[in-house]
Amino acid sequence: MRIATLTSGGDCPGLNAVIRGIVRTCSAEFNSTVVGYQDGWVGLMEDKRIQLYDDEDIDRILLRGGTILGTGRLHPDRFKAGLDQIRANLEDAGVDALIPIGGEGTLKGAKWLSDNGIPVVGVPKTIDNDVNGTDFTFGFDTAVSVATDAIDRLHTTAESHNRVMIVEVMGRHVGWIALHAGMAGGAHYTVIPEEPFDIAEICKAMERRFQMGEKYGIICVAEGALPKEGTMETREGEIDQFGHKTFTGIGQQIADEIHNRLGHDVRTTVLGHIQRGGTPTAFDRVLATRYGVHAARACHSGDFGKCVALHGEHIELIDLNEAVGTLKSVPHARYVTAKAMFG
Amino acid sequence: MRIATLTSGGDCPGLNAVIRGIVRTCSAEFNSTVVGYQDGWVGLMEDKRIQLYDDEDIDRILLRGGTILGTGRLHPDRFKAGLDQIRANLEDAGVDALIPIGGEGTLKGAKWLSDNGIPVVGVPKTIDNDVNGTDFTFGFDTAVSVATDAIDRLHTTAESHNRVMIVEVMGRHVGWIALHAGMAGGAHYTVIPEEPFDIAEICKAMERRFQMGEKYGIICVAEGALPKEGTMETREGEIDQFGHKTFTGIGQQIADEIHNRLGHDVRTTVLGHIQRGGTPTAFDRVLATRYGVHAARACHSGDFGKCVALHGEHIELIDLNEAVGTLKSVPHARYVTAKAMFG
Amino acid sequence: MRIATLTSGGDCPGLNAVIRGIVRTCSAEFNSTVVGYQDGWVGLMEDKRIQLYDDEDIDRILLRGGTILGTGRLHPDRFKAGLDQIRANLEDAGVDALIPIGGEGTLKGAKWLSDNGIPVVGVPKTIDNDVNGTDFTFGFDTAVSVATDAIDRLHTTAESHNRVMIVEVMGRHVGWIALHAGMAGGAHYTVIPEEPFDIAEICKAMERRFQMGEKYGIICVAEGALPKEGTMETREGEIDQFGHKTFTGIGQQIADEIHNRLGHDVRTTVLGHIQRGGTPTAFDRVLATRYGVHAARACHSGDFGKCVALHGEHIELIDLNEAVGTLKSVPHARYVTAKAMFG
Amino acid sequence: MRIATLTSGGDCPGLNAVIRGIVRTCSAEFNSTVVGYQDGWVGLMEDKRIQLYDDEDIDRILLRGGTILGTGRLHPDRFKAGLDQIRANLEDAGVDALIPIGGEGTLKGAKWLSDNGIPVVGVPKTIDNDVNGTDFTFGFDTAVSVATDAIDRLHTTAESHNRVMIVEVMGRHVGWIALHAGMAGGAHYTVIPEEPFDIAEICKAMERRFQMGEKYGIICVAEGALPKEGTMETREGEIDQFGHKTFTGIGQQIADEIHNRLGHDVRTTVLGHIQRGGTPTAFDRVLATRYGVHAARACHSGDFGKCVALHGEHIELIDLNEAVGTLKSVPHARYVTAKAMFG
Repeated sequence: MRIATLTSGGDCPGLNAVIRGIVRTCSAEFNSTVVGYQDGWVGLMEDKRIQLYDDEDIDRILLRGGTILGTGRLHPDRFKAGLDQIRANLEDAGVDALIPIGGEGTLKGAKWLSDNGIPVVGVPKTIDNDVNGTDFTFGFDTAVSVATDAIDRLHTTAESHNRVMIVEVMGRHVGWIALHAGMAGGAHYTVIPEEPFDIAEICKAMERRFQMGEKYGIICVAEGALPKEGTMETREGEIDQFGHKTFTGIGQQIADEIHNRLGHDVRTTVLGHIQRGGTPTAFDRVLATRYGVHAARACHSGDFGKCVALHGEHIELIDLNEAVGTLKSVPHARYVTAKAMFG
Repeated sequence: MRIATLTSGGDCPGLNAVIRGIVRTCSAEFNSTVVGYQDGWVGLMEDKRIQLYDDEDIDRILLRGGTILGTGRLHPDRFKAGLDQIRANLEDAGVDALIPIGGEGTLKGAKWLSDNGIPVVGVPKTIDNDVNGTDFTFGFDTAVSVATDAIDRLHTTAESHNRVMIVEVMGRHVGWIALHAGMAGGAHYTVIPEEPFDIAEICKAMERRFQMGEKYGIICVAEGALPKEGTMETREGEIDQFGHKTFTGIGQQIADEIHNRLGHDVRTTVLGHIQRGGTPTAFDRVLATRYGVHAARACHSGDFGKCVALHGEHIELIDLNEAVGTLKSVPHARYVTAKAMFG
Repeated sequence: MRIATLTSGGDCPGLNAVIRGIVRTCSAEFNSTVVGYQDGWVGLMEDKRIQLYDDEDIDRILLRGGTILGTGRLHPDRFKAGLDQIRANLEDAGVDALIPIGGEGTLKGAKWLSDNGIPVVGVPKTIDNDVNGTDFTFGFDTAVSVATDAIDRLHTTAESHNRVMIVEVMGRHVGWIALHAGMAGGAHYTVIPEEPFDIAEICKAMERRFQMGEKYGIICVAEGALPKEGTMETREGEIDQFGHKTFTGIGQQIADEIHNRLGHDVRTTVLGHIQRGGTPTAFDRVLATRYGVHAARACHSGDFGKCVALHGEHIELIDLNEAVGTLKSVPHARYVTAKAMFG
Repeated sequence: MRIATLTSGGDCPGLNAVIRGIVRTCSAEFNSTVVGYQDGWVGLMEDKRIQLYDDEDIDRILLRGGTILGTGRLHPDRFKAGLDQIRANLEDAGVDALIPIGGEGTLKGAKWLSDNGIPVVGVPKTIDNDVNGTDFTFGFDTAVSVATDAIDRLHTTAESHNRVMIVEVMGRHVGWIALHAGMAGGAHYTVIPEEPFDIAEICKAMERRFQMGEKYGIICVAEGALPKEGTMETREGEIDQFGHKTFTGIGQQIADEIHNRLGHDVRTTVLGHIQRGGTPTAFDRVLATRYGVHAARACHSGDFGKCVALHGEHIELIDLNEAVGTLKSVPHARYVTAKAMFG
């Protein structure tokens, strides 16, 4: 057989481990070959492809963040308009099955290709951990680890200066990273998009700490956090004199509000891109490798229109439909558990 | 209510996070108090107990390895003979429920106490990940991370010197640490207790690497690895002139054999205790905290004779029976998946 | 003898290691006792003091960031007005010598106390590495390590997305952190306050990388970086509709300018407080401990009005005058060396 | 000009950073080219050479441990006998100057080549930090960091189990790694080759800890540690029934002796090769890069027969004679300072 793979959407620690898992499994178990399309769907449409050999080069990528294939985004309309081209390119290259690695958007594309007769097995990818039907996605553990390291460091500086420290982490739509990093880092409050926050309650929690003599506090805030309606005015990014948007993130806005209400010194750190780059944790390397192995096997057993998923200790195949319906958000019960550790 | 807890058996990163989880949940959700017995079952029998307060001290232990309660081992016979003493001590202290945190042996003790009418909720603990009925135990991810870091470091020194490097990791009875660290570290061969090894096959894999121009190899060996019968003579520890046992681990023995057969320079690193000490990974801190929260809740809902367990995304309660029957070993299929990455 | 110590100014990884070094040396070598004043000079004036014992508590702080004594800032006028109070407090407490640990401002205060007859030995402290007369200050190596880890992570995400990434590090007046982190992290350009930048030159360097096929770039920017006069308009913080200053750091401004000139996708990460918190590196723990030991010894040998300093392999005493004259900035030759690695 | 370089002796984190520093400086400052000889002196004699280009490949090696050129050892007699061959090979390749990177043995070879008219600039390399005439060698900080991380982890497991833990670190002839890692890790005793140990004194220090209620201890032992004459019998490696030498390191021997004398549970961890592999610390990357830059410059300014060295904040050139006379050992005064932190 001849398998093709590509990585699409935002990068994520572990992408290379999946690619390596596919290539080595194809070679070791099936004597099949693998080609990689560069820059996501774009590369598939423009036929930018490279042969991936089971050699020392593929072996060394296990530790590398990012993706050796590059990534990119393509508008769904352009994507759909390119179906014939995609079909032709795959045929020309003698590709028997395609393994797209990507987030919800990518998997939707994979589903559509599958519905149009192209043999596809998807691999879910998101540092946000918001893909339905799988316990964890690779990259998430690395993002949580980076954020937790940062929170560990902020404790001592906050404490030395009697400050409240806000750490804003990734999570525009779901709060998994904030939930886990906040719990792992011992944050005294955590704010996630799924649970609109009440600034008065946050202030009360901080105030209680200062009254008890613990004169500092750490608050972990997902970038997509939102106040309960009517409890706090928030700002959109503004346009400055140079025509650039000067965005003040929700973390800084919460910081301003706490400072205004309580008078404490409040500082904000926005972790940003360091959460998605760099070498994956051991957990993510194992998960990504297993995804790669099982995706390669699914291609060879003809299990198309499916997506690999982690269920407990096992990698299983789920229908692509299951993965792309809705985002997996933090259940209320999990937030209640997190709350027991606040304060 | 008044809850008691203790930690028993080998230490494990995350024990303190469980204790913190219990104390804070009891305080935040139930307004209950918690006492800790020191040095495991011994402390329970000898009534060595300390009050655990929901204050900054308990808050700070999240990051600390080891256990603030100390740990210990007690012979099952002595343990059983002490039932009346245990019962009296718990009664004296006004304890309504006991949460023992420990491995298979400890959970067996917990089961026995439960059968004898003492209200018990167990928390499984083992860096070896060999407790039945739960996807993961805390401490395991930390051990795998430490071992993976070590393997990452060994690659470059092995390569610079054209050496085969053996890294011996923990796992006397099961190979979970070796399996995961070997896969995460990109080891070229991994040997686990569940799959008796054929030294000729290992040598062939190394030889193939040297022939292909990759003049080094990394082999990850669980300390409990054993050869297939008749394929390699192994040695027990000997008694030296000072009366001390000079144990040569299985890693070194494999190293000697490879050197003898292939002539390559082969070196061994035995990771030892650094795998079980130190600050837990973010993953383990979250898992351990959740175990603590749910054990405390189970006590308050009267779910005794149970044990907390991770099933996919959820913490659930399983019967203590389920946890203590047999060790959870690496299934053959998982080893086959690992093998696809060898070489 | 009875020694007093205090920590003043911004916190810095290694402060606790200095305190531990003082306490243990006083105990082990001189059988002297140590008191700590809390919250910097303020605590000295307000007589907020605690006894520091050579016990397990002092032993455990080696790994902790921040300062167990707390820190604070005091206006020089208030400080000077308090001389009699300071003198009285030290006398009341039976203090024979004072070891203030702090940056340039603190050492100036120390000098002034010394000139007024108070026996003082200073310990230089700054993550910025800008104290004159010493090769390195503790905390600097930790800050550089944190920043380098971040840059390592940004490489792969920048590369996967064909982006220019700006990482803004600490250094308002001097560029040591940027210089070292930029070199250690393999940044393709580094901008420091000592060397006003030419945005056109930076753009040219980035453009050259894209032309050569390396479609990404990393630029390390000290927060105090400034453009060459007339080469780029920069903005001060503005006041938004809520009356808050919306500061756009120099890193973001450089990002905007590169984007405008070249059209590339450019992103900014501001590392902020994580550079000054958390456990110190091994290098900083050793340096800080040695500073503490030698400051304690200097007190006992009557070498007052001095400051400990690292010269090559040795800790020596320099005159406080030497430490407080001017900031130690990056020499032009060092920047030229850094430039050889750009691009 | 045309510069050649090679790496010789044991590998060391930072070798690749030196190579990168040479290549980029030659390209950026002098428009010179660089060739690399593989496997140390052997490759020079056998003319195994590769062109090193200033491209992305050379850029990426900054983070990689080991050496892309490989390394090797050559008997001094064979080396000297090969002078004519070396001269011929360098001439054939059009090499104008040679930069050997290595330890004391390599620098002796460099000195001898220089005496025989070959233009040479040496770069000192040893994780042991034992080269004369330079404050630090690269690789040392990485080794100390790895050892310190290990000691950090051992504290909590030792404490939980009331154990004495021995950690044996590298240092056959000098104790720099043990001295620094012991101080950074807060070891309660450190043993180095320069200061023969008295086992009774070590036991007394441990006993004092147990009496004071701190029921554990960490002892950092350099592999080359030796007892004071007559104070403790030590063993050489023995030959077991399979003809293999069963070496029991000095760490284990000290452990046995403490156990025999005090009865405590004592465990040993031998860190081994993980100290010399893997990605260099930020400190080592900067030092190694600067060594490379200055070695390249020295070649172009004709400063032959010299060796780069770190003196305080500056890289300077010293005579090769100065580097190769004797090993730089730990001065007694440094050990006295370390001792203030014991116990």
